[in-house]
Amino acid sequence: MNVTPWDVSGEIDYEKLIREFGTQPLTQDLLNELEKRAKKPLPTVLRREFFFSHRDLKRALEKGFFVYTGRGPSGKMHLGHLPPFFLAKWLQDAFDVNVYIMLSDDEKYVHKRDLSWDEIDNFSLDNAKDIAALGFNPDKTFIFRDTEYIKNMYKGVLTLARKITFSTAKAVFGFTNETNIGLIFYPAIQIAPTFFEEKVSLIPAGIDQDPYWRIQRDIAPSLGYEKIAAIHSKFFPSLKGFSTKMSASKPETVIWLDEDEKSLKKKIMNAFSGGQPTIEEHRKKGGNPDIDIPYLLLYYFFEEDDNKIKEIEAKYRSGELLTGELKLYAFEKIKEFLKKHRENKEKVNLDKFMYSGKLAKRMWELDLNLSGRK
Amino acid sequence: MNVTPWDVSGEIDYEKLIREFGTQPLTQDLLNELEKRAKKPLPTVLRREFFFSHRDLKRALEKGFFVYTGRGPSGKMHLGHLPPFFLAKWLQDAFDVNVYIMLSDDEKYVHKRDLSWDEIDNFSLDNAKDIAALGFNPDKTFIFRDTEYIKNMYKGVLTLARKITFSTAKAVFGFTNETNIGLIFYPAIQIAPTFFEEKVSLIPAGIDQDPYWRIQRDIAPSLGYEKIAAIHSKFFPSLKGFSTKMSASKPETVIWLDEDEKSLKKKIMNAFSGGQPTIEEHRKKGGNPDIDIPYLLLYYFFEEDDNKIKEIEAKYRSGELLTGELKLYAFEKIKEFLKKHRENKEKVNLDKFMYSGKLAKRMWELDLNLSGRK
Repeated sequence: MNVTPWDVSGEIDYEKLIREFGTQPLTQDLLNELEKRAKKPLPTVLRREFFFSHRDLKRALEKGFFVYTGRGPSGKMHLGHLPPFFLAKWLQDAFDVNVYIMLSDDEKYVHKRDLSWDEIDNFSLDNAKDIAALGFNPDKTFIFRDTEYIKNMYKGVLTLARKITFSTAKAVFGFTNETNIGLIFYPAIQIAPTFFEEKVSLIPAGIDQDPYWRIQRDIAPSLGYEKIAAIHSKFFPSLKGFSTKMSASKPETVIWLDEDEKSLKKKIMNAFSGGQPTIEEHRKKGGNPDIDIPYLLLYYFFEEDDNKIKEIEAKYRSGELLTGELKLYAFEKIKEFLKKHRENKEKVNLDKFMYSGKLAKRMWELDLNLSGRK
Repeated sequence: MNVTPWDVSGEIDYEKLIREFGTQPLTQDLLNELEKRAKKPLPTVLRREFFFSHRDLKRALEKGFFVYTGRGPSGKMHLGHLPPFFLAKWLQDAFDVNVYIMLSDDEKYVHKRDLSWDEIDNFSLDNAKDIAALGFNPDKTFIFRDTEYIKNMYKGVLTLARKITFSTAKAVFGFTNETNIGLIFYPAIQIAPTFFEEKVSLIPAGIDQDPYWRIQRDIAPSLGYEKIAAIHSKFFPSLKGFSTKMSASKPETVIWLDEDEKSLKKKIMNAFSGGQPTIEEHRKKGGNPDIDIPYLLLYYFFEEDDNKIKEIEAKYRSGELLTGELKLYAFEKIKEFLKKHRENKEKVNLDKFMYSGKLAKRMWELDLNLSGRK
């Protein structure tokens, strides 16, 4: 198993990851407290443990928090990109908090040497629409591109940059002497939004991103700010099996948000399954939902009804529900989701999220200055 | 002798520097050509060889050029900061070219860990006024602070950053693993203005700054732009002797632009002299102007009249002119310069240079994008 911000491979052991990263398990007690404070039921990604680990969630709940997450706009978005946004939206609905969403176009540009600004600019706006379409509050959500918002962040970014040595960046991000100076500088940018408010910045993200936040947790107290809190997700299962994650660089493993129905059906029907090779065998031995990708997609994301998912699981294990039937059901659910998503995306008023909504407007007046506070 | 962008010390041998940096001597032939094209007499800093070396000046003259220079606003300005601006202004007057002046407030902030943004912001505006007061054309000169202009440069800066590895930056600037990531990123910013126009960027600067431009010369062709050209100056003599340079960190070595007359007189009277210890000895043996700081200040900068400076030199060598008399003459000349400078500074309309002049206005509409050209 290898899990770093730049590589995830091998058989993933999530309990081991918690020990290795030094994070905390998301216990039932903590989830109960979260639900109590939220005054609404937990989303499937929480109650079915797609998010499984955290840092300082209790402190975030006690002291008050805002949500920060992001997206590197180097291509179209797929389902695997959505869990942090699902959780961010739920947190916004439940706690009425601001959500800040960074489009790290600068990082993608210096990281992928073959991308031009035109390409990245197009992906940025398309990704922003996909994200906004998930139902965020346009007056409490700020979606920004680094290359535009740099003007309001740069002074604060430099305050962070002068506290981070190449040694530290090298140790945390695996930089080498051949890394370009744009990529080396970027951590200071990624950290900056955690200081947008004086509350705790709560970050939903893959656990592989955790190293990025260790630097923030080292620096924040010296600036008189709160250390970040985080909720860590598992890796989104690839269509080819859950030992790899959905990855845009392998199109056969992903479901795009703009996947057409024909192609979606083909992908689901070909997805890795826990069913038996023949109907006879399946009826006799039953299927294994624990490794079945269509089942897992339903379980974690697309079948919200707890009774229904239990029924599916039971029937699949018993052999009553066939692989083809399960796949068809998953196809229908995901088709519905994507259809609604496309409709929502059409209706998005991106200008509100990026420039003219209540929060966005306030953010374009901010001049992030971190040297005055402490 | 040690000459790098971060340290100048020892006995300086300028011919050796030309060999070591691999630059070209500023020959009389080239100066004649410059004067012919300029259609006006060379300034003292050129005809008396304060600028002594160059790169590609001939190409700049043939292909057309603009002028780029800058200032790190970490304190008040002194006389030692002025030669590149003297030359820039003369080039603007002679060739009617645009002059771009960077205030590298970002670099100073990440370099000097004890400076706050408030301090740097104050120095930036005060320095900008000092520079503008030298008589630049407000419609052809753009003075900008990096922290403000980053918004128009960032995309172009990132195109440069992704072409510069830590290895390269380390070799050229002497960075170590303990250098902060803000300082490591800065070279990409300093280079960006050399791409503001498609002409050759001509840079008047101390020869110690030459390594900064080697990277530009490596990168420019791959972007379809011109390599920079440069004219290199000697080091501005310290009041304590010309083996050290005027340095703000040693206030006893410098004359501030806001030096009051009493303090100016004291400093000149105490300056390192080539005269003899007693009047009798001076009358007999004569003084040595070659190492005499008040004489050198007159020679390089403040006595423009060639006949007058020759007369001073002859009389000083012969012993006819006493050290006290020479110092008093230098004091009067510099006093006059500073008085006029203060008056000009009062009258500066900084807004024109930074925001509303013809060139400034155009520059605030620019979005530097270097990935489209080649």
